[in-house]
Amino acid sequence: MAPQLDSYFKQVDSLSDHFIERLRKAVAIPSVSSEDERRPDVVKMGEFLAEQLKALGASVELRPLGKQPHKEHLDLPPVVIARYGSDSNKRTILVYGHYDVQPALKEDGWATDPFTLTVDDKDRMYGRGSTDDKGPVLGWLNAIEAHQKAGVDFPVNLLMCFEGMEEYGSEGLDDFIKDEADKYFKDADAVCISDNYWLGTEKPCLTYGLRGCNYYSIEVSGPGQDLHSGVFGGTAHEPMTDLVRVMSTLVDSSGKILIPGIAELVAPLTDEEKSLYGDIAFTMDNLYESLGSQTSLFDNKERTLMGRWRYPSLSIHGIEGAYSAPGAKTVIPAKVIGKVSIRTVPNMESADVNKLVYDHVNGEFAKLKSKNKLTVSCQHDGKWWVASPKHWNFTAAGKAVEHVWGVKPDLTREGGSIPVTLTFEQATGKNVLLLPMGSSTDAAHSINEKLDKKNYIEGIKLLGAYLHYVAEEPMKEG
Amino acid sequence: MAPQLDSYFKQVDSLSDHFIERLRKAVAIPSVSSEDERRPDVVKMGEFLAEQLKALGASVELRPLGKQPHKEHLDLPPVVIARYGSDSNKRTILVYGHYDVQPALKEDGWATDPFTLTVDDKDRMYGRGSTDDKGPVLGWLNAIEAHQKAGVDFPVNLLMCFEGMEEYGSEGLDDFIKDEADKYFKDADAVCISDNYWLGTEKPCLTYGLRGCNYYSIEVSGPGQDLHSGVFGGTAHEPMTDLVRVMSTLVDSSGKILIPGIAELVAPLTDEEKSLYGDIAFTMDNLYESLGSQTSLFDNKERTLMGRWRYPSLSIHGIEGAYSAPGAKTVIPAKVIGKVSIRTVPNMESADVNKLVYDHVNGEFAKLKSKNKLTVSCQHDGKWWVASPKHWNFTAAGKAVEHVWGVKPDLTREGGSIPVTLTFEQATGKNVLLLPMGSSTDAAHSINEKLDKKNYIEGIKLLGAYLHYVAEEPMKEG
Ligand SMILES: [Zn+2]
Ligand SMILES: [Zn+2]
Ligand SMILES: [Zn+2]
Ligand SMILES: [Zn+2]
Repeated sequence: MAPQLDSYFKQVDSLSDHFIERLRKAVAIPSVSSEDERRPDVVKMGEFLAEQLKALGASVELRPLGKQPHKEHLDLPPVVIARYGSDSNKRTILVYGHYDVQPALKEDGWATDPFTLTVDDKDRMYGRGSTDDKGPVLGWLNAIEAHQKAGVDFPVNLLMCFEGMEEYGSEGLDDFIKDEADKYFKDADAVCISDNYWLGTEKPCLTYGLRGCNYYSIEVSGPGQDLHSGVFGGTAHEPMTDLVRVMSTLVDSSGKILIPGIAELVAPLTDEEKSLYGDIAFTMDNLYESLGSQTSLFDNKERTLMGRWRYPSLSIHGIEGAYSAPGAKTVIPAKVIGKVSIRTVPNMESADVNKLVYDHVNGEFAKLKSKNKLTVSCQHDGKWWVASPKHWNFTAAGKAVEHVWGVKPDLTREGGSIPVTLTFEQATGKNVLLLPMGSSTDAAHSINEKLDKKNYIEGIKLLGAYLHYVAEEPMKEG
Repeated sequence: MAPQLDSYFKQVDSLSDHFIERLRKAVAIPSVSSEDERRPDVVKMGEFLAEQLKALGASVELRPLGKQPHKEHLDLPPVVIARYGSDSNKRTILVYGHYDVQPALKEDGWATDPFTLTVDDKDRMYGRGSTDDKGPVLGWLNAIEAHQKAGVDFPVNLLMCFEGMEEYGSEGLDDFIKDEADKYFKDADAVCISDNYWLGTEKPCLTYGLRGCNYYSIEVSGPGQDLHSGVFGGTAHEPMTDLVRVMSTLVDSSGKILIPGIAELVAPLTDEEKSLYGDIAFTMDNLYESLGSQTSLFDNKERTLMGRWRYPSLSIHGIEGAYSAPGAKTVIPAKVIGKVSIRTVPNMESADVNKLVYDHVNGEFAKLKSKNKLTVSCQHDGKWWVASPKHWNFTAAGKAVEHVWGVKPDLTREGGSIPVTLTFEQATGKNVLLLPMGSSTDAAHSINEKLDKKNYIEGIKLLGAYLHYVAEEPMKEG
């Protein structure tokens, strides 16, 4: 029997201004984890969450993670862990989110101040962290509050784990989760993470797979210091020339990875899998809108979704050490570091990928016969992840989506990596569900990040509804 | 008969601490012309020069150049023009220098604060602008002062032209020089510029040729904003991929320019020219020392000097818009601008070079079949220059070098461009001499720029001696 959710839903609607105000307060704290000087703001954001949770009656702890590796002058921001309810007759759901955000500067091209939540005439709420991931994190708090004010019993015990370093590699979190798996997180029956996005803008989805990411540094050095190209051009091997030539052998303009052996690591496409893509609610227009252009690699949705979900991709992100400002500096940079990453998919093992990359890069560099020095290394890697979408955790979420949004959700995978997903699965041994709140046009990690008001408010309903359906699912593991 | 210079030289020696103090004051003014917020310091440096010149009895004018093109909120720094002496029985020498400097940050890797002149135990004077070009500019002022204090008659009328935008393309200066050629600069019999360097560290040189420089922007754009590589990698054409592939077709690791037609524009090497390179005082060790490494393209000095002086070279300086910081950001940049320059030599005409570059770049991009957009443009160009080293201006300088340093100078060309050289030649119709003060290891435009104390003090003697020999040269044009 479907749970009675009407009074909860009504309460969410009537509290919507209050919930937007809560998001406004959170966005106003510039909790940029990658910038040293913002670290106090990251901590402040963790404390803000803790206070709000305490006010809602949750038991809360701020757990320190020690010093930041390679930046020993900095303390890592604390993990905020909390428990709401401890009724042994209820299921216990562990939810994860992050309270840190990507860097953002008005000068980068934001139309509005990135740390001032600004709602436009189409009810789009702009601000850094609005959709990634402050909106979803506050969604859990809002769900608790709406239950309380509606006088509806909270259907599960909720364990919460909110970290402050997600946008900078979740430093320290893996060990913390492993340590707490049989302690603070011991009761968890399943895990839910709201930190990804709908495929398009209209239809909700549940996500059961993620690509991994191996991130490489390719460093070429030669001269003892930066040189003037007038004086040294034509007399010395130039690191930029070598780096550009090596990087040009990694991927072609059609997106094809040119590193031998990579394609062979990829799980073959079966007819069954192939047939799934046609039904997914996604159009090329969704892609064009989120791209902001029509520069797609493919002209059909099936191949586009496969390109995002089930095939690896290689991106060249930039070069450290080369001239990067506007203007016209005639420098020969002495040391340049190319930043390249490969999105990985089943069945690519990180060590195998690394070996292929190293062999290829070193081989291509050797062909150049340059006197410069090249070193290639994997800066970090995160494995791909695929879960079972037939587990009760997914079934409950599917019913909740249908209740709130009136449609069955698509079962999707994601192109990006959320490494903590795999960590939770491995540490707890429980099913992990990705339950997104925002939509494909939210521009997480870009300028003008936003969360639609509708996604936020209906998302709060969804998180609550999901917990009610979880409480009603048969107890056997799916 | 050689001029009597002993009392002048002695005076220079006894004033050497005072002259170093004057350089210290100049280096302390961070007159970085490329940084908007430093513009007041550039102006301050111009005013400092003007005051010092006035105190020496020169007539001085600060000439405004109007607003900075494309940065209309900024006034260009003034040109400091000055005259010392107006005896119609004397020759008039026009000297040029620049009082602005390259950017410099301690964090870039400077061993000392770049704007604090720091003398080490080997009498190397470190500081931004020490050798480029504050040391040489102050050299002229110091020469005047030493003549005064030694009671030696100044042998020529000296016209001075010191600009404050050289490191940012000498904005506005060309028109100024053309305008003043028959006005303020009308009496000039020859021009002398001290803004380049010895080939090595031991032997002085006179310079009669320069390469030109055509600087290109190659812009590739596609997506409406920066993208997350997890979400969009494998679905969209990536501007960085296209740019890297296009740039990889410009030059190979041996320094060979791959753009068809460029080599054909270069004046052929004659046997006579070829024979000149063997005698030049330059060793591969000089190159290795200034490179800070042994990563030379060639293993002999002749081919190395040709690579620097008489063949074109192509350098890739960097990329604007791509990720350039330390760390590991997984961004797909929406718009990237490659910065590439070609050093030009006789007989490469700028328009011909541009056409070859545009055709090649557009052709290579077309081959990629990318949906992104590429535009290539010449950001600025400066023509190469070759003068007659048999003119009395050079003969006088040669004798002065022999007097001060005890050796005949090498007659050299330079790999870098000093566009104002050609402007002075064309505007005044007079011979232009490049008379360097610093040496090859001075690291202009790099971290740890320095000027050796010996080069500074003997350089002051040389500038004065040069003017005495100029006064004695036969009047016929060389
Ligand atoms: Zn996130
Ligand atoms: Zn994120
Ligand atoms: Zn200079
Ligand atoms: Zn310079």
